[in-house]
Amino acid sequence: MKISEIRARLDATIEANLDSNIDRLGRLVGQPSVAAQQWGIDECADLVAGLLHEIGLESEIMPTGGSPVVYADCAGCGDRTLLFYLHYDVQPPDPLDLWKSPPFELTRSNGKLYGRGAADDKGNVISRIAAVEAVRAALGDLPCNIKFVIEGEEEIGSPHLPAFVRKHELKLAADACIWEFGGVDFEDRPTQILGMRGICYVELAVRTASRDAHSGLGGSLFDNAAWRLTWALNSLKGPDERIRIPGFYDNVHPPSDRDMELLASMPDDTDWIKENYGLSGFLKGETRPVELHRMSVFEPTCTICGLTAGYQGEGIKTVQPGEARAKVDFRLVPDMTVDEVVEKLRAHLDAESFADVEVKFIGGELPARTDPDHPFIALVNEAAEAVYGMPPVVKPLSGGSGPNHAFIHTLGVPIATAGVSYPGAFVHSPNENIRVGDFINGTRHIAYIIEAFGRS
Amino acid sequence: MKISEIRARLDATIEANLDSNIDRLGRLVGQPSVAAQQWGIDECADLVAGLLHEIGLESEIMPTGGSPVVYADCAGCGDRTLLFYLHYDVQPPDPLDLWKSPPFELTRSNGKLYGRGAADDKGNVISRIAAVEAVRAALGDLPCNIKFVIEGEEEIGSPHLPAFVRKHELKLAADACIWEFGGVDFEDRPTQILGMRGICYVELAVRTASRDAHSGLGGSLFDNAAWRLTWALNSLKGPDERIRIPGFYDNVHPPSDRDMELLASMPDDTDWIKENYGLSGFLKGETRPVELHRMSVFEPTCTICGLTAGYQGEGIKTVQPGEARAKVDFRLVPDMTVDEVVEKLRAHLDAESFADVEVKFIGGELPARTDPDHPFIALVNEAAEAVYGMPPVVKPLSGGSGPNHAFIHTLGVPIATAGVSYPGAFVHSPNENIRVGDFINGTRHIAYIIEAFGRS
Repeated sequence: MKISEIRARLDATIEANLDSNIDRLGRLVGQPSVAAQQWGIDECADLVAGLLHEIGLESEIMPTGGSPVVYADCAGCGDRTLLFYLHYDVQPPDPLDLWKSPPFELTRSNGKLYGRGAADDKGNVISRIAAVEAVRAALGDLPCNIKFVIEGEEEIGSPHLPAFVRKHELKLAADACIWEFGGVDFEDRPTQILGMRGICYVELAVRTASRDAHSGLGGSLFDNAAWRLTWALNSLKGPDERIRIPGFYDNVHPPSDRDMELLASMPDDTDWIKENYGLSGFLKGETRPVELHRMSVFEPTCTICGLTAGYQGEGIKTVQPGEARAKVDFRLVPDMTVDEVVEKLRAHLDAESFADVEVKFIGGELPARTDPDHPFIALVNEAAEAVYGMPPVVKPLSGGSGPNHAFIHTLGVPIATAGVSYPGAFVHSPNENIRVGDFINGTRHIAYIIEAFGRS
Repeated sequence: MKISEIRARLDATIEANLDSNIDRLGRLVGQPSVAAQQWGIDECADLVAGLLHEIGLESEIMPTGGSPVVYADCAGCGDRTLLFYLHYDVQPPDPLDLWKSPPFELTRSNGKLYGRGAADDKGNVISRIAAVEAVRAALGDLPCNIKFVIEGEEEIGSPHLPAFVRKHELKLAADACIWEFGGVDFEDRPTQILGMRGICYVELAVRTASRDAHSGLGGSLFDNAAWRLTWALNSLKGPDERIRIPGFYDNVHPPSDRDMELLASMPDDTDWIKENYGLSGFLKGETRPVELHRMSVFEPTCTICGLTAGYQGEGIKTVQPGEARAKVDFRLVPDMTVDEVVEKLRAHLDAESFADVEVKFIGGELPARTDPDHPFIALVNEAAEAVYGMPPVVKPLSGGSGPNHAFIHTLGVPIATAGVSYPGAFVHSPNENIRVGDFINGTRHIAYIIEAFGRS
């Protein structure tokens, strides 16, 4: 059978199974699974295991010390093994009042499927299940071995996954890995993302008094927790965006010539980002697309994710807060480490007279990436071109973070991306959604990869 | 009848009516009246009018454009008129989880009466009602005219009161005024507070994007509202506590020799404040009691009352906030004005490249004070000595703020303080309370003042 015939048969099977797979996605989105709040995690792991059973895979729910991993495998007729990494946990749905449909009820409207996790990552979980199902139905057997590792703590920084991968190194052994995300860009071109920045997520907490005080007293006489926090934060970064922690940039390297070549070949998405977030411009007034691409992945960041102190309601309350807290994330580029950031942050705060500011480490991931010239990347890119009618835009690194380091460093696998998302997916935000067409194409892409990987 | 006999008769009447007045206080505390949230305001005004009727006063509910004023008056046998200014609104009860009893249910325990408003200001409202009732019962008639002005917006900065007082200048005309608060200090000495700092309460709000963004994208590329707010706040004041707004100190004067004499005669309450708020020390390491007294009233302040941005829940959420807000209050000393602070703040933010930070004016009060050597102050202090067995501690200015300027500047009355509070009252905080003994003494003090004012 010619490749074009095989692919036509895969396409027809995926199309025929579309409704049943949207139904599966509805069941999965309908089960809340917020790792940050330990909400519905075990129930969701059971549901995922059940979905894998439905397509005939042996699945296990494996303990990790945190949310369990749902593992499944299936022998194919070839020797090679393809690993799918995914996650069944989601971000919290708040702010709830901005959702136009219930976050945990998959809602189809105007060719889109809305719900928390529709894109990140439940749509991808179902697309892999649908692809494996389609390959078996269309070809009679799988051409390679398949393994699934579906974790439940990705949105809180995968704290137990690296140790889990090390512990089960032999069981998880594979020749290549398809990552949990992927999809098309703002002009519907397929994308290939070759790595991720790391992250170090901390909470800064200050307590200056045993309770809030009347501002007419405390404001004149003793420390205000909100002021201490403001000054401590200000010591980390100023409007020039340069992070002031001594030694923070020690292990940061400039991008290679090959990296810059890839950045230069990426399309200009600046207008899309401006429109999507209602922006008048970018940091430091930057307008050059390649420089914005470079900033977005090859520079580390320090982002305030949340602030809380004192009275936050309507009108006037004249209090001086006794406690204040900030959530802060640092994105790390190769070869920074999570540990060095925590240590340098603590040393900096101490040196700047902020010993009273507590640093609570909440989670971290190392940066990691795959060689742009690895043959597996070429295979995945060829499959993408067959699905989307054009070669993918290759991004040497993503701005986001994830546990790819656990697979790249421990299992030694190359990692490529493929998936159902698009830039309007509102990932981590209200009204998260995917387009039905992307759900179909993402599934086709995975099926084509499985088929090609068996031949390679 | 000798003064000592009159006072003994007043004391006996107040003692006999104690339970019925605690019952009145229970009814008043039981009616929530949170001006910041417009919660129960009209119902509370009706209740206050009803309580005034109970002791035979004609009362009216007068519109102000905001919460109504409850006004009452009563002719006495003398020509002179004594005005009581009070308020029936209270601060919000949050944080609710720190209350040991329901905030809107007066709870008697260990000689104390707990509930939101027990001290500020419903205990004082009932003490005046109880005193007028006792003077009439004990003496057969009032020796002077009495007027009550009980407003419902004190806790949100009395936005309509100055215009109300100007509009009803003739109706409110009086020879002297007793303020809404007063009581004893941390060693149970009576206090006399001769004025108040002003206040300018604003919200600083920044919006940098139409919605929150994934921190892996926004953190590298565009403005973070929480960072903009942090830097804008940092531009207002640094750890040296000096407010950096140009011209902020232009109208600030050092205290007079008479003021410093009064400050020097005030007791050292530093250990009490440290213990009460769990402090290790005071701002700038200051330890000298007189200097701390001076700082607490004769210097203007800039206090962050609240901060809010992004994700504030448990664990990790990797968002970049599109919006951030801070509540900020400035306390003003004579002769600063509210308008100049708003203008100088706006000009400063613009000059410091924070034109994107919106300044929302929420409320303000001017600073105002009464001459320490006014005869009415001597009268009130003599009555205090008779009740408490010692002369009051006289404070030339309070750290807090209120609408005393409306009465001092418009009606030209001297203002003295008397009341039922004490330093452990947890005013504006959870577990607000008064001691029953202070409730009795505060009522006696008012009754003695009415009696002496009639003779003066």
